[in-house]
Amino acid sequence: MTNIKLTLAYDGTEYNGWQIQSEGRTIQGELTRVLSLLDQRHITLHGAGRTDAGVHAEGQVASFGLERDFGLRELRDAINGNLDRDIRVLEAEFADDSFHARVSARLKTYRYRIWTRDVVSPFARRYVHHFRSALDIVTMRQAASLLEGKHDFKAFTVSASDAETSVRTIRRLEIIEESDGLAILVSADGFLRYMVRAIAGTLIEVGRGRLSATRVANALSTLDRSEVGPTAPACGLTLLRVDY
Amino acid sequence: MTNIKLTLAYDGTEYNGWQIQSEGRTIQGELTRVLSLLDQRHITLHGAGRTDAGVHAEGQVASFGLERDFGLRELRDAINGNLDRDIRVLEAEFADDSFHARVSARLKTYRYRIWTRDVVSPFARRYVHHFRSALDIVTMRQAASLLEGKHDFKAFTVSASDAETSVRTIRRLEIIEESDGLAILVSADGFLRYMVRAIAGTLIEVGRGRLSATRVANALSTLDRSEVGPTAPACGLTLLRVDY
Repeated sequence: MTNIKLTLAYDGTEYNGWQIQSEGRTIQGELTRVLSLLDQRHITLHGAGRTDAGVHAEGQVASFGLERDFGLRELRDAINGNLDRDIRVLEAEFADDSFHARVSARLKTYRYRIWTRDVVSPFARRYVHHFRSALDIVTMRQAASLLEGKHDFKAFTVSASDAETSVRTIRRLEIIEESDGLAILVSADGFLRYMVRAIAGTLIEVGRGRLSATRVANALSTLDRSEVGPTAPACGLTLLRVDY
Repeated sequence: MTNIKLTLAYDGTEYNGWQIQSEGRTIQGELTRVLSLLDQRHITLHGAGRTDAGVHAEGQVASFGLERDFGLRELRDAINGNLDRDIRVLEAEFADDSFHARVSARLKTYRYRIWTRDVVSPFARRYVHHFRSALDIVTMRQAASLLEGKHDFKAFTVSASDAETSVRTIRRLEIIEESDGLAILVSADGFLRYMVRAIAGTLIEVGRGRLSATRVANALSTLDRSEVGPTAPACGLTLLRVDY
């Protein structure tokens, strides 16, 4: 059996998220169906990040064990040939036996795009959150810098989270100006459920002057969900890359 | 009555082109329906370029006469509020009574995108022509330079064209390298039907070594459609802007 690493891009608009479910189309479900077809047995596919419904990926990573003999380009093309074009395998590689897309991941990077101009381009509409209001990038950057580093992000996730610990390390949290709004780029060793979208929602509240940077810092010690902003919509979020 | 100029963007994937037809959704048809609703009478809308089925626009221009009293932002938002989000009015402006989106147009610019890498990104798939083969940009540029200027482009249109003259002036025809392929940018005083796509199809044939630059130049004097390449697919084409 050969261990295979896939790098994936997908437009998550029409999918019920990464994780396979009893109902609804999911990215993992579509890929598992195709891989099982190609390997003529049931395949278990591990993904680096469990992206939510409507979230996109430019560089999701997944791994699985393959029994049949395939060339890497042949495998990539065979998978793509059996998928809708809104999911693509960008690359298939051989990986060490110890490689596991989720467990081995060292750093994940997400981008959250906010469109602040009045009219959203038809070409961007699936990939941005439309927030038709001026945002103060200076105060957003102040709040962002307070979130960088190792913290307990319990205030930035759903209360019913079953994660053992809610401590994570944000290596980088940047606000980037774009021609039609701005983008939040965040890299961390791992993310809690809805964490990036709660950070985005919080930074938006800071940018519009409804929440202070000190209040955000406070939430890192009180761990109180009500101290931070709402969860921003899924469509603005894209998993950009996973580093190992 | 006030003359209004609209600047429009649309994802043409799901539309049967610009021009209103007895069957099928069209861009002009959707806009005419909404404008007639807002002005409570039948509106005649003039478009600068009659984009074909599946062709996109980032800067199409249209004009019409409005009887009701609207502020410009109010008008823009009222139109957008009644359209699917794959058609957007980017801007509404007052225009001189003499302004006519098609007749007054001085220069139109189209972009044709060709994706040459093996795997097409899910985010680009609606907007590029996938041509999975190396293209020689140097010979493409040689051929492109021969097409610039004032010529009879009869070989680059459908034979049944009812245009009175097939002479047009190409002000600029550039091949631009992109990270995943290349783009053809073409500006002219006007275009014949399928002309940009025939130019794109011809330049692709040149780029892959199946057609010589001299053969392309020849077609400008023989006016023979069989001398040039096939009409490239609609999805790669976008009307970028119209100058007045």
